[in-house]
Amino acid sequence: MSNARKVRAYTNIALIKYWGKRDDALILPTSSSLSLTLDAFYTETSVSFDESIEKDTFYLNDTLQDEAATQKVSRFLNLFRETANVKTPAIIKSTNYVPTAAGLASSASGMAALAGAANLATGLNLSPQELSIFARQGSGSATRSIYGGFVEWQKGTSSMDSYAVKIDDAAWDIGMLVVVVNKNQKELSSREGMKQTVATSPFYSGWVESTAVDLVNIKKAIRDQDFEQVGEITESNGMKMHGTMLGANPPISYWEPDSVVAMQLVRQLRKQGIPCYFTMDAGPNVKILCRLSDSQKIKTAFLNYFNEEQLIISGPGSDLKEVTL
Amino acid sequence: MSNARKVRAYTNIALIKYWGKRDDALILPTSSSLSLTLDAFYTETSVSFDESIEKDTFYLNDTLQDEAATQKVSRFLNLFRETANVKTPAIIKSTNYVPTAAGLASSASGMAALAGAANLATGLNLSPQELSIFARQGSGSATRSIYGGFVEWQKGTSSMDSYAVKIDDAAWDIGMLVVVVNKNQKELSSREGMKQTVATSPFYSGWVESTAVDLVNIKKAIRDQDFEQVGEITESNGMKMHGTMLGANPPISYWEPDSVVAMQLVRQLRKQGIPCYFTMDAGPNVKILCRLSDSQKIKTAFLNYFNEEQLIISGPGSDLKEVTL
Repeated sequence: MSNARKVRAYTNIALIKYWGKRDDALILPTSSSLSLTLDAFYTETSVSFDESIEKDTFYLNDTLQDEAATQKVSRFLNLFRETANVKTPAIIKSTNYVPTAAGLASSASGMAALAGAANLATGLNLSPQELSIFARQGSGSATRSIYGGFVEWQKGTSSMDSYAVKIDDAAWDIGMLVVVVNKNQKELSSREGMKQTVATSPFYSGWVESTAVDLVNIKKAIRDQDFEQVGEITESNGMKMHGTMLGANPPISYWEPDSVVAMQLVRQLRKQGIPCYFTMDAGPNVKILCRLSDSQKIKTAFLNYFNEEQLIISGPGSDLKEVTL
Repeated sequence: MSNARKVRAYTNIALIKYWGKRDDALILPTSSSLSLTLDAFYTETSVSFDESIEKDTFYLNDTLQDEAATQKVSRFLNLFRETANVKTPAIIKSTNYVPTAAGLASSASGMAALAGAANLATGLNLSPQELSIFARQGSGSATRSIYGGFVEWQKGTSSMDSYAVKIDDAAWDIGMLVVVVNKNQKELSSREGMKQTVATSPFYSGWVESTAVDLVNIKKAIRDQDFEQVGEITESNGMKMHGTMLGANPPISYWEPDSVVAMQLVRQLRKQGIPCYFTMDAGPNVKILCRLSDSQKIKTAFLNYFNEEQLIISGPGSDLKEVTL
């Protein structure tokens, strides 16, 4: 216990979305995706193996978790224990600096931080690439939270080459304003939502094919630091994902009235000459890609419709890292 | 002037949507569609040829219309004049009992009524089927407003066999509650919206293919008077159309915050055991398909969020008909 080491991983928001698996067990995606890591939302986790306990014990935000939540963590830890040939139960302590399950991808930072802490506790000394492969098996989007900046999750051909790579440090004038429309647990998990979409949406092949094109284009735009182009592709790819869901049977929609308010406001600000672009995930929250230097101005405009607590500015996050306790 | 005869045509709401043309000039659609004609929204129009005037004169709701609006009517009237070998200018008087361009398909009842009035004024004595072909060339959805009840617009193979046929009188317990979210002119016309969708949405082929299946299924459900089945297909096909639009580049969305409020309320009422289903067109208004016997109860629930003037109940409308002045 005394020598538990803590790892922090930042969440990430996909600009080119991940929406659908080709392999449910291994979490292999139908298409490659690309995200921006955010420094305002992260998870810190420690893992300490302890001979004196009988089974894994999991604390989230200082609260002992139930059987179901603990089992999910145990299963993921087993990947590390098997590799390191360890059988000892562990105490896992995790603190989420993310509104849980509000579509802010807490599972991304959560599983990435757990992977990082397990790596330290087992002494496996995995490379970031190997860590990305492990994290992926906990939660698809976690594979991207190993790195900061702009990160691509290459869909790969097997479990061994489906991992994230850093595309760009995002060390330029870029950030996000996250509009928390609703931080309650969503009714349909993204896991279920994507499953139903893949199974029933007649748009799915169109989604996969056109997303591959969007990815090529956004990587070029990032290389050129062409912010408007990055934003336009982000907004169009995100709406396309939501269109794919509306094509599911029954139709899937995560939008709430305030989601539409936020999107309309972004369009309005753009008309006024402020470059900003929205994206949404499997939830009602709206994430606005903007120049970090414009973010305060945009937030001020949003304060006419939303409360201070609903508006969170973030710059680009960094790689997963060990933090001192 | 003294002998001008007036024709009334009712608007219709598509349950299986028309969204895209394969021929812009002739208005031939990419897929067949199916609608319910509504008796609460209609247009009344008279056409009288007058040797004493120099050019067509068009009054809408007792207001003399400008060049652009008049030219649109003139071009449509020319189809009849050419067929009847008439060259005389006409006075056209039209009254819209529909919030214009609010996504309530005023062009459907408008062009259908104009076709009916022109038919009388020219003495062409066209059959309903011929009238449907003429009306189609004024506005696609007008082709369906020739008939009451459930109406299919068969996409056909050419201009001569792309017309509407009546599927069912809708003489059973069925109706709609129209929620007028916004009756202002919409920013992007449906003509432009569908053009952009056809040209840029990667979902378009999926839309066309799956809509053909929806049409077969809804016709069976109508034959069986299976209301729940009719409703489920309606809701899913409508959302699919909006999904196809979100796939366009740039994405197209006609939703407003209150559109989402209305859709959420429908889902809630359904959970409470009231069968009702929503659909939306190229605008923010929400149309709720329900048992006519449930419509008052549903309206009452909506009065918690909307004003009396925004909520219009309608039963099924009838065929286009002559009305006495």
